Amino acid sequence: MTGIAAQVYDPLMRVPFDVLHAALRRVLEKIGFTADRADLCARLFAEASRDGVASHGLNRFPRFLDTIRNGVVDIHAEPRRVARLGAGALERWDGQRGPGNLNAHRCMHEAIARSREHGIGGIALANTNHWMRAGSYGWQAAEAGVIGVCWTNTMPNLPPWGAAEARLGNNPLVIAVPRPDGHVVLDMAMSQFSYGALASYRMRGEMLPVVGGFDESGELTRDPAAIEASWRPLPIGFWKGSGLALMLDLVAALLSGGQATHQLSATPEKETGVSQVFLAFDVTSLNAPGSGPGAATSLVDQVIAHLHAPLRDGGRVRYPGERTLGIRRESLANGVPVDPAIWESVQNLQV
Amino acid sequence: MTGIAAQVYDPLMRVPFDVLHAALRRVLEKIGFTADRADLCARLFAEASRDGVASHGLNRFPRFLDTIRNGVVDIHAEPRRVARLGAGALERWDGQRGPGNLNAHRCMHEAIARSREHGIGGIALANTNHWMRAGSYGWQAAEAGVIGVCWTNTMPNLPPWGAAEARLGNNPLVIAVPRPDGHVVLDMAMSQFSYGALASYRMRGEMLPVVGGFDESGELTRDPAAIEASWRPLPIGFWKGSGLALMLDLVAALLSGGQATHQLSATPEKETGVSQVFLAFDVTSLNAPGSGPGAATSLVDQVIAHLHAPLRDGGRVRYPGERTLGIRRESLANGVPVDPAIWESVQNLQV
Repeated sequence: MTGIAAQVYDPLMRVPFDVLHAALRRVLEKIGFTADRADLCARLFAEASRDGVASHGLNRFPRFLDTIRNGVVDIHAEPRRVARLGAGALERWDGQRGPGNLNAHRCMHEAIARSREHGIGGIALANTNHWMRAGSYGWQAAEAGVIGVCWTNTMPNLPPWGAAEARLGNNPLVIAVPRPDGHVVLDMAMSQFSYGALASYRMRGEMLPVVGGFDESGELTRDPAAIEASWRPLPIGFWKGSGLALMLDLVAALLSGGQATHQLSATPEKETGVSQVFLAFDVTSLNAPGSGPGAATSLVDQVIAHLHAPLRDGGRVRYPGERTLGIRRESLANGVPVDPAIWESVQNLQV
Repeated sequence: MTGIAAQVYDPLMRVPFDVLHAALRRVLEKIGFTADRADLCARLFAEASRDGVASHGLNRFPRFLDTIRNGVVDIHAEPRRVARLGAGALERWDGQRGPGNLNAHRCMHEAIARSREHGIGGIALANTNHWMRAGSYGWQAAEAGVIGVCWTNTMPNLPPWGAAEARLGNNPLVIAVPRPDGHVVLDMAMSQFSYGALASYRMRGEMLPVVGGFDESGELTRDPAAIEASWRPLPIGFWKGSGLALMLDLVAALLSGGQATHQLSATPEKETGVSQVFLAFDVTSLNAPGSGPGAATSLVDQVIAHLHAPLRDGGRVRYPGERTLGIRRESLANGVPVDPAIWESVQNLQV
């Protein structure tokens, strides 16, 4: 179901996951990250490429370094708790403008820990940076055996339904459910297609499979170049995704005490101080263990089996995360696809 | 932003809100509801009509009575807590097949109460019935001054992206943020248009403003009658809404320990035992009071002001809930629009 939006990189070249991970880690260590933080930060970038999201993996790494150089990202800053409510099921953290993926990973880790105690755990994070691949933190929760929900706001980059000016963020939303045979992980931004996906279609000379935005004259179009020119991608579900983007921004800013989309710089390399929410739910203690009829595992398997049951027309429906798993397996077996030019530049970085 | 999907009833006839409320209450008392429960249940139906959602207000009331007669709804059943996790931020409740709107209202009430203690409160409700208008429980949270999030699963009535068979529920999702000058309330199902909306367009002889589903030959179409004939409404955002519908079902069933969509009867009058989630967030204690620069109120107002700022083309963007507020004001000033035939039948009900 999530297939069309995924950016599957044309495998011009493949490198082993560990080699990619080590190369990124080396760069981060050279520029001053501590060993542990370099390892995790590099792993999150490498895993994004491994899972077919190179736009927020290797391909994004040079731009991440730019935001360190220009002062947007403070590599030594760690998130800190600034408030807890009640017994601690909901906490407010300050990201202190540290690396966005490290901050997000830490906050999902904290949310998971709270959910073990309270059934539910919520961390609202203000003053952080772009978390790179949204899905990372959903997979993290699912790997820990809990349900994870998270989202971030972004700078204004999506016109609300009925407008041509970008006044909403393309706020990605992640919902993840653990499943032994493959976690179910939805990772979706509010636009029908990302700019990366638009560029991919354009470069392949293809029209979009469905309308993806407006052309300069305000007509809905399937032409990716026309949407890149107008800067008017379409919110999912037209007015509905437009409304959902607004709500995610409001809730993230209110819970975290941080900035809302309209307060963020609309210059991509200066985007900073975003607000995020991490929720984890652990109901393991309430559900029967194992895979018997009452078990949560069994229920998720049943739902997926129902979705997978043969269609009258012979087609097959995928669940969110299913394609990711296939790409991951191929990357681990045959190497992670990399853009040769970017891969070379990262290896030769003089930092 | 939510405008096109809203079913604005053609005001053939209007009756004062209190008259509508009293008439519905009288029917419920006659069939055995206690006075308090009759009052609340009738109010929720009357408020749906008042707010322009007659499909889940007066127009749905006769069908609600049918589900009492056929045993789907037990008017005396009250929801009961079956488990609490940790200090009680997350609880599991059993709806015991009571009236869906009363069960949902109670569970949002409980979630709000937990959020006062813990910052966050979650109630997962199994074994309940159709909650009628989804937005009711978002408005309820916002009226109480907290952020509310809730959703329900439904019987299979939405084909996943890539399929013609209904294997997903059209699970509505509600997110509500309080605001003194008008709460911001998103109330959206996973299909681009409800069957009620499709019927309204067809009866007015209009095409849909955007594609809303597939015709019998599997082509995307704006023809409402063709979608009614194929039973293939479009998920919002194509594959994205399809994935979101699946996740909402999974999380609701897992948290509540109740049924998932594939386990529910696909016959509308027999749909029962649905699963729901109610979340409330109360961060009042962390935000500066009043309307100063640091106040939550001020932030929400700023976000709405930014959205409302004049567009270059002279247009205007609405926030979720804005149109509802206008309809509500008109209903309270001039009476609630009612379908004369349904209104007459409800007044003359021999129960």
